[in-house]
Order: sequence, then structure tokens, then C-alpha cells
Amino acid sequence: MKEFDIIERFFNQKCHQRKDVIHGIGDDCAITRVPEGLNLAITTDTLISGVHFPIDTPPEAIAHKALAVNLSDLAAMGAEPAWYSLSLSLPEVDENWLEAFSTSLFELSRYYSIQLIGGDTVQGPLSVTITAHGFVPNESPLTRSGAKPGDMIYVSGTLGDAGVGLDIQKGKLIASEHCVQYLINRLYYPSPRLLAGTALRRIASSCIDLSDGLIRDIQHVLKASECGARIQVDKLPLSVALKESVDVEDAYSYALGAGDDYELLFTVSEENKGTLDIALANANISATCIGHITGIKQKLELRFEDQPYQSLRSGFEHFS
Amino acid sequence: MKEFDIIERFFNQKCHQRKDVIHGIGDDCAITRVPEGLNLAITTDTLISGVHFPIDTPPEAIAHKALAVNLSDLAAMGAEPAWYSLSLSLPEVDENWLEAFSTSLFELSRYYSIQLIGGDTVQGPLSVTITAHGFVPNESPLTRSGAKPGDMIYVSGTLGDAGVGLDIQKGKLIASEHCVQYLINRLYYPSPRLLAGTALRRIASSCIDLSDGLIRDIQHVLKASECGARIQVDKLPLSVALKESVDVEDAYSYALGAGDDYELLFTVSEENKGTLDIALANANISATCIGHITGIKQKLELRFEDQPYQSLRSGFEHFS
Repeated sequence: MKEFDIIERFFNQKCHQRKDVIHGIGDDCAITRVPEGLNLAITTDTLISGVHFPIDTPPEAIAHKALAVNLSDLAAMGAEPAWYSLSLSLPEVDENWLEAFSTSLFELSRYYSIQLIGGDTVQGPLSVTITAHGFVPNESPLTRSGAKPGDMIYVSGTLGDAGVGLDIQKGKLIASEHCVQYLINRLYYPSPRLLAGTALRRIASSCIDLSDGLIRDIQHVLKASECGARIQVDKLPLSVALKESVDVEDAYSYALGAGDDYELLFTVSEENKGTLDIALANANISATCIGHITGIKQKLELRFEDQPYQSLRSGFEHFS
Repeated sequence: MKEFDIIERFFNQKCHQRKDVIHGIGDDCAITRVPEGLNLAITTDTLISGVHFPIDTPPEAIAHKALAVNLSDLAAMGAEPAWYSLSLSLPEVDENWLEAFSTSLFELSRYYSIQLIGGDTVQGPLSVTITAHGFVPNESPLTRSGAKPGDMIYVSGTLGDAGVGLDIQKGKLIASEHCVQYLINRLYYPSPRLLAGTALRRIASSCIDLSDGLIRDIQHVLKASECGARIQVDKLPLSVALKESVDVEDAYSYALGAGDDYELLFTVSEENKGTLDIALANANISATCIGHITGIKQKLELRFEDQPYQSLRSGFEHFS
């Protein structure tokens, strides 16, 4: 099976059509249109087999995760998904693998109404690079740089699940069956918090998505916003499955340091707290206040029931 | 050296600023603005070490080629370059390599006024994925699908040089020193035909860039346009260096079948021939008429001085 047959059979035929895509797959470029008054958010993430996901990860999960991590970046800027390009490097042509991969990819694509507009298919080690595009209002976007001392720090959902899922997947941890399924799903099928992202426009002072672990990712906000943070570790939201699977100390360590959560971390001023509560309730979004921003530049303080807390884990680092 | 230090030192600091980039490198997404009345052209190409370039290719050439092949896709749609994202997979952090790579990348970026707006840096086998964005007028774009029987077929520049360069680089061919330099440069440092692409808007009936070889790439035009083509092989434009390095039969074989030329192939109606000549002369673009479009669907006829011609080479195929 040749490159162009692969594209036609597994990708082009399954692609749904958005009105703002004038030319999709099949030419040297795609041609698209950005609606008047909107700006374009663009993000790129690469997942490599054995680095970003275990080599025995099912193709459905690879496809889901590769798109979801990009959607999560769009969510962190309050963007609405529009289009994406896909570069797929495959060691060989395995039709069953491609069928499972593309079916899962288009399931998520349709759910978020994001259209595949092109890309590249090459022979090489298994890796997936997606560049996703979304729309944001033509005003100050949600960034990492607006946090102010006194702002409250929130996270969506629960933390640490994917990290525990990974250790279960690697055989380092044993958990009960119903917990295993939940935690592995959190690792393989992260939920991009797109609804939360758009709900936070004009309300949050800063926002970032958690991919490398809370401790590590919050540093980007502190650096960009030139401030510090105090985190109440005992306030970190933990899932029932996580609490059932590891002891309490490990639970908070996973929540602080493990990656792949793809939840949003955001800050909100005291003044906007009321608006936030309404917006979260309206959109049925669960978020938890876990601390506040301080004036001490780039200093991260961890507290547990008001006592200093020493973390056992830190975030994932490439080339560390 | 950590991922974020690499981005800061080798990429962020060297980046020039366009006015339509509202947020560049350093957040979850870049935020950009498309000027009113323009559409957006988007293209993605991946280059993998040992597949798309020999493993001993200098970092300057890898950077140049990775961006140039994407710019060539923009050229084929008549787009003006705007922004790009870069996903770089590196087996290890080699500061000299990164310095050479990024210097060459930004040299080409500045020349074409295209801004790096983000991407990803990961540890893995050496590969480069670029997604490039450009602007096209809000009208029917230059595509592969508009060729009509009777249209003349043109190519820009000369063909086959990069293919000969590759065989010299591999040690399969020996050539004189001044030819070697020229031909290897054509392989390593292709010139995206952006000026030609914009000059051809509203004049050419179809356009494609030649990456996998003339014989192979023209099939995309014939398929999309539902027509055939007759190519006069003896009319194919050959460089002096190519003619000095191989015999005449091989010369035409390289010109027909070898990849990596990154010249434009385009079709023009009889009616637009005068306009084309003026446009090419005004922009100082060299292009050669090499045949014409026929009505026989997807049939490619090769002639040499009006006799049928049998080609020795065909284009590059992934997963063939």
C-alpha cells in the first residue's frame, strides 16, 4: 500500500467537512478562512513511541492522545478548535493499526468539530506530530502571564490519575480492576478541557494546561507572570480511584508531580470569584481552589495543613 | 541543557517579529491574525534522517531544506509566507549542531519574512516537522485541479540537479569540483519558488511543486484535473553542471525521475500565454515549456524529438 493510498483510504474518506475549509486534503496546501474579528491560535505537539507513550499503547489511544494534547493547548488559551494537520511516521504499513488509529482520531475530531486538513505520511520510527488551529476572540487572550499576587489558583478535574495509570501500565503498581480501567483510561484518553477554556475567557487572569506535572507546569505561569505561588497540597483534587490505589502520601506526590493530566490550571482575582463560580456552574465544570499567587518571584511554596511540605516527585523533563 | 533552555537559547532569541503575530513562542499556543480579505494556506512536511536526507547531512542543510520544502508547497499555491511551527526530534543535545541548525533556519526565515511561532522539542530519532502558513487572496487559489486539454506545461528552473547531487553525495557518481558544489547545493539548499508562485496567480490553470520527481508529481495534476499530458523529454531544462556530470540519456532520466528539485510545474492556457511571458519577464523568472495537456485521462506520454520515449527512473515512493 502506497503513501497516497493510505491517505485516501484511512484519512481523506473519513474526514468531515467544515465550511471554513476551502481546500482540504489533497493539494500542496490546505486553504482555510478565519472568521472576521477572530484571531488564530496555533499549537504543535509531537508524541514519540517509547518517550511520550509506552510502546505497547493501542493505536486508538495514540490517536486520541495525539489530538487531545493539542486540543488541551487550545483549551488553555480559550480557543475553539478549527483544523489540524497530522504528520505520521510509521515503521511499516499495518492496515489494522491504521484502521484503529484513524477511526479513533476521527471520533475525537467529530466530537470537537475539528477538521483534518492535511499533513505528511512517512516511513520511520513511530511518532505523531499534530499542529492544531483554533479561534480566539480578537482581544487579550488567556495566557500564562496575567497572574497577580492575591489571585486564587484553581485546577480543573482531578490530578495524578494518569501518572498512577502509567505506573499500573508499567507493572509498578497493582490496583483493583475498576480502578485500573479508570486510571489507564485517564492516561490513554485524556479529556481536553475546551469548554472550561472558553468559559474562562475574560474571567481567569492566567491559564496553562498540565502536561508535565503541576509542580513543573506552574513554574511557567510564575515565570511569565513574575510572581510566586503557595499551594495547599491537602486541597489537591484526587479521584476515588487514585485514593483507592495508592496511600495518601503517594497520592499527593502523583498529584503534584506526575504528568499527562491535561487538566487546566488557572488563576482568578478575588474580584472575579463570583463570576467564575457562575461560569463554572453554568458549564457544569468541576474546579478546585488549591492555593494563591504570592509576590515572591518564581517561589513555589508547598503547604500541607499549613505546614511546609516536601515533594517526592517533580515534572517530566526532556533532555534532563 | 533542558528543553526550555534549548528553545530560549537557540530559537526564541533569534526570532524576528512580524506584526501579525500577537503571541509568539512561549505559551500553550501562538496567537496570530490573518489580514482581512485573505485566506490561509497551511502545509506540513516531515524530514527524517536517513529517509529524506542522508544521515551525514550538515545541520545547516537540514534546517534549510526542512523550511524550504514547506515554503515550496506555499509557492505551489501562490501563497505568501507568514508563520511556521517546528517540531524537532533530537537524539541528544549537541550545542554546535543546534547553533548551526538554528542559524541556518533563521537566515532563510528572515529572507522570506516567515516567523517561527512555536513547536515542540523532543528526544528521539533525528527528524524535523514544519507546518507553514501563508496568505492567499480570497479567490480561487492555484491548485492541481485546473489543467485543461491544450494547456501548455511549464517548469521553473532546471530539473534533475538534486538527484545527481544525491548520487554524488552517496559516492555513486564522480564529477568535477565546480559541478559537485553546484549540484550538492541544489540537493541541500533548494530554492522555494515563491516569487514564481505569486506571479502565477490568475495566470496558471494549475500548479504543483516537484518534490518526488516530474513523472510522479505530474500524475497528481493529471488525476486532480482529469486529463493527460504529453511531455517533450528533449525540452526538459538541464543545468550546465548536470550536463557536464552525466551522459545525455542519464541527464534526462534524472530530470524526469529524480526527486528534490522543488521547482514548480504549472499549466497555462493558450489565451494566457502572453500574460505569462510578461509576468515571468517582469519577475525575472526562468521557466520552460515542456509539453502540453491532453484529453486522455491520467495518460502520461513521453516523447523525445517526436518519438516515444521510455523512462529509466520513476519518482520516490514511501512504503512502495
